[in-house]
Amino acid sequence: MTKSEYTLIENYMLKQMENADMAHDRHHILRVLNAALDIYKHEEKVDFDVLVAACLLHDIGREKQFEDLEKHCHAKIGGEMAYEFLLSIDWSKERALHVKDCIVSHRYRVNIPPETIEAKILFDADKLEVAGAIGIARTLMYSSPIKEPLYILDDDGNIITSGGGAEVSSFFQEYNYKLSKAHNSLFTKRAKEIAYERQKTAADFYKGLADEIKRNYENGVRAHLTFLS
Amino acid sequence: MTKSEYTLIENYMLKQMENADMAHDRHHILRVLNAALDIYKHEEKVDFDVLVAACLLHDIGREKQFEDLEKHCHAKIGGEMAYEFLLSIDWSKERALHVKDCIVSHRYRVNIPPETIEAKILFDADKLEVAGAIGIARTLMYSSPIKEPLYILDDDGNIITSGGGAEVSSFFQEYNYKLSKAHNSLFTKRAKEIAYERQKTAADFYKGLADEIKRNYENGVRAHLTFLS
Repeated sequence: MTKSEYTLIENYMLKQMENADMAHDRHHILRVLNAALDIYKHEEKVDFDVLVAACLLHDIGREKQFEDLEKHCHAKIGGEMAYEFLLSIDWSKERALHVKDCIVSHRYRVNIPPETIEAKILFDADKLEVAGAIGIARTLMYSSPIKEPLYILDDDGNIITSGGGAEVSSFFQEYNYKLSKAHNSLFTKRAKEIAYERQKTAADFYKGLADEIKRNYENGVRAHLTFLS
Repeated sequence: MTKSEYTLIENYMLKQMENADMAHDRHHILRVLNAALDIYKHEEKVDFDVLVAACLLHDIGREKQFEDLEKHCHAKIGGEMAYEFLLSIDWSKERALHVKDCIVSHRYRVNIPPETIEAKILFDADKLEVAGAIGIARTLMYSSPIKEPLYILDDDGNIITSGGGAEVSSFFQEYNYKLSKAHNSLFTKRAKEIAYERQKTAADFYKGLADEIKRNYENGVRAHLTFLS
């Protein structure tokens, strides 16, 4: 890929993502590209240009998704947008379709598994964005746009940590459902290595956060309930 | 304070904060109250009811502040709102004014130092919300509402960590300017103890995050610049 072609694709991406939230900004896109290039070095027979284009364009459908979270899937919309854009800059139908397929199958919650090595690398590079300290940071940065609180307490003042999944409702549930298991869904050996490297920072932070909240509650309202009743 | 008076004040607060962002939700208010009650145990001659009311009401001016970030200060607006509300539920002018003064002086960036012990406890309890893992989590949760990116890179791909202050522009700058120094501005011995307890979790996370971003960049674009030029 030439510098000018890269810049062309990057500029199109930046234009589509002008209103992106802080967890899906240009830095996220560039980290996904970085991770993909790292994994690329450890794999064989990878179409470099398809991979770079797929990384740069994988989240361009997000703005549309935000218009109606139930109805739209940014992976499907983004795949179609990328296909049309690549045809417009003279990519062949076959390779534009290859990029589209990578983008359609990159999403965690959609059951379209990545088939090609390029799709698997994009999937892994994007999944590494929910691993480690970066995964913690991005999940927290995304909590305000989707109105997700840090935690929910039960009647005894304990943090509810389970019950995640389709109805994820707090950072603590999201961590247990998705972040702490990020390494399980990865395809490539190199991505698994990176995920394991990052695991301790995330686990230590999660534990430290839970401890702070517990101590705060126990030394506060719990110790003073007599005053308040 | 009776349970019914507590509930009256709490309900007023919840109503004012219906549209609060996730870093300033009811859990934040309750953690500030918890921390204040913890510090209260270690201090003498504290007006318990003034302290509880000031904690519950300290952020009720936030919604108004968001209407015009430059013009409004939530501490001043919230203090006035709290004063009027407490008079309406038959508090004396003197004690309602005491609560108002606590709220007006609780803000980090405003140069109205807290004078009374109740004001100092509220100040410290709220400042503990930028310390430790909780401080990290809340700062990240607040990044989308104020459009603050995780980091800014210089031309060599290094994270810019200085240059915070009046023009804070990334989480990394905010950490160095405010979060890592939270303990410096505290008044009470107990609050300082809590801040020190929390410091390691925050510092480890910050370091881990910086390492992940650095490695991601070095193994990615930096190692492949030849392909992209």
